Parts: sequence; structure tokens; C-alpha cells
Amino acid sequence: MTVVCLDLEGVLVPEIWIEFARKTGIEKLKLTTRDVPDYDVLMKQRIAILKEHNLKLNDIQTVIAGMSPLEGAREFVEAVKKEAQLIILSDTFTQFAAPLMAQLGYPTLFCNDLIIGSDGMIEDYRLRIRDGKRKAVEALRSINLKVIAAGDSYNDLTMIRTADVGAFFRPPESITAENPDIPVFTEHSRFLEFIRASL
Amino acid sequence: MTVVCLDLEGVLVPEIWIEFARKTGIEKLKLTTRDVPDYDVLMKQRIAILKEHNLKLNDIQTVIAGMSPLEGAREFVEAVKKEAQLIILSDTFTQFAAPLMAQLGYPTLFCNDLIIGSDGMIEDYRLRIRDGKRKAVEALRSINLKVIAAGDSYNDLTMIRTADVGAFFRPPESITAENPDIPVFTEHSRFLEFIRASL
Repeated sequence: MTVVCLDLEGVLVPEIWIEFARKTGIEKLKLTTRDVPDYDVLMKQRIAILKEHNLKLNDIQTVIAGMSPLEGAREFVEAVKKEAQLIILSDTFTQFAAPLMAQLGYPTLFCNDLIIGSDGMIEDYRLRIRDGKRKAVEALRSINLKVIAAGDSYNDLTMIRTADVGAFFRPPESITAENPDIPVFTEHSRFLEFIRASL
Repeated sequence: MTVVCLDLEGVLVPEIWIEFARKTGIEKLKLTTRDVPDYDVLMKQRIAILKEHNLKLNDIQTVIAGMSPLEGAREFVEAVKKEAQLIILSDTFTQFAAPLMAQLGYPTLFCNDLIIGSDGMIEDYRLRIRDGKRKAVEALRSINLKVIAAGDSYNDLTMIRTADVGAFFRPPESITAENPDIPVFTEHSRFLEFIRASL
């Protein structure tokens, strides 16, 4: 029995913060861990910017609901669910993912949570567990499930390496150069063929 | 972040072997672990009966595709997926569950596999892991997911006891009498309210 573990952003949906920054025009929200390497510093900064613009969770969810999954992602999710079990492993937050998960037909998602104040403002965030993607793959393998894992970036690398079968989907060149043994896919259709052949 | 772990047969779909026996008129397939306590003996007997009737996996899947989920189960699954993450934990086999999972919108399922011969006959079965439901709940809790688990029978008891929150759904009276501390639900709508209150 095989579980396909997929990263969310970059594989099925756009990068949520970048797209959110684009839609709202708030340039400073375009910064990522490439610009601010300490994730905690970055998140605290993002939360402060949202407060500064008086953006409550509801406002943010409305903007996110206006985003769409990547082209072909919904059909890809439907196809994977018919072939194997699907679990999305993401570093994003339940509350941000929700509007996009609705558009993907609510596949199973393991991610993190935001802490929302009584006024509807984002107060903080809660990492469920450190290196959560890798630990999820280990937990699934510990109950004799075969795991195929794929993602687009550095935070997916331990998960991809821990899985029975790993792949990159639309990664930056740097990561593929450093990991030449991991297969790379750029189209959902070819990636689906790979999953079928790896079951 | 909460995962709802649900037993399949008796909670979302009918008992597959009993319904299959009814649809095909093969009385001997109505026997369960209540009649033949050793599961391995029972399964070997079932496989022999299927061979005797020259029933290949395809034939069996066609019969199962004619079954329906329990009334309201599809809507219940849709509702749970909007509130939390859903994983079905079942002792059945992927190949038997498939036609019913299609009708439920392919929620994530952890179960067992049948071994199919080149002639399409069922040759054997493969238990993925002993006490698989309990171990799945433990694996999910080990990565800091909160687990709400529910099932209808004795093979669900360790999973229900291991979860953060446990419940019975339409159980036999004997099991509720022996476990008076576990809440009992008989309707999906009331059970959904309980899940919402337990998130």
C-alpha cells in the first residue's frame, strides 16, 4: 500500500505569501527564507506587517480564496487519489491552506496552525513539530506504508530522502545540481506516470 | 491540527463480506470472526470459496461496485474533510474497498492488500502490520497530530483507546456494555457535532 506525500506550494498551488503580496501590493510580504534565513524572524515580521495593514484572518482568507491551484493540479490530485493514498505535507498553516484545499477537493493535509486573537488578528504561529515533513514520512513508513514523496525546495529534501521513492517537482536549479540522483519533473502528467511506475 | 480516523465497514459502508454474500447468494461467505475466530483460517476459507465459484477479482469488484455507502455517509465524509483531516483505517483490502472509496470521493485509506494471481484469482492476502489501526493512531500522535477515532467493533477498540478522543458508531450492545466510558453515536449528524466539539 503506497502513500504519495506531496508538498503543497509550488507543486499544487502557488507560493501563498508571494501571491498574497502580489494581490495586496504589500511588497515587504514578498520576502522569503532566501531573504530572511531565520524562519521565526521572517514569520514574526510577516505577522507585524499584517497587523500594520490591519489585515485580519478573514481578509487574508478572502484574498487566498481568490487564488487558484496551479494549472492541472486539481486533475492531478484526483488522478493520484485513484492510484494511491494521498497526503499533503506542508509548512503552511491550516487557516491559509483552507481556501485552496477546498478547490483541490480537500485532500488530507498535515501542516501547522496560526494562533488567532479574539479580534481575528493573527497573533502567532505554532510549528506542530520540527522537520515535520521528514517525521511524517518516517511515521508512515513505520506502519509499513510505502512512501513516494515529492516537493520543490530545500525544506522538502529530508522528506524526499527519507521516502522509499523521491522526486523533485519544478525545483530551482541549485537544488537539482546538488542532488543529481533525485529525478526531476516539471509537468503533472509526466510526474503521474512516474508515480504509477513507482507504486 | 486534528485527524479523524474512521473505521470503514459499519461506519461508512456496509460490511463488505456480508453484503457480498447476500448479493451473490453464497451463504458460506456470511461467516465472520464471530463464527470462525481465527482470522487467518476465515480468510483462507473465503478465498477457497471464491475459487470454488470461479470468482475473479474483477467479478468481485463488479459486485462491490453495486453496493452503496451507508445512507448519509458521503455527505458525512465531505463534512468531516471540511472540519479536519480524515484518514480511514480499515482491516479490509485495497482492491475490495476501491469501488466504495470511489463513491466516497477517495478519502485517504490505510488498509491491507490482496495478492492477485496472473489469472485474476485471489491467491492470498497480506496484513500490512499487526494491530494496524492502533499503530496508525500511534504514528499520527507521534508527529503531534491530535486524533479522534471511531469504529463499530472489537477490532476498533485499541485504536479508540489510543486516540486523544474515541467513540463508537453503531456498535453491538456487548461492546458498549463492556466499555461504558466510550461515547456511542448512531447517527452521522450527531457524530459530526461531537467531532466539531472535540477538535
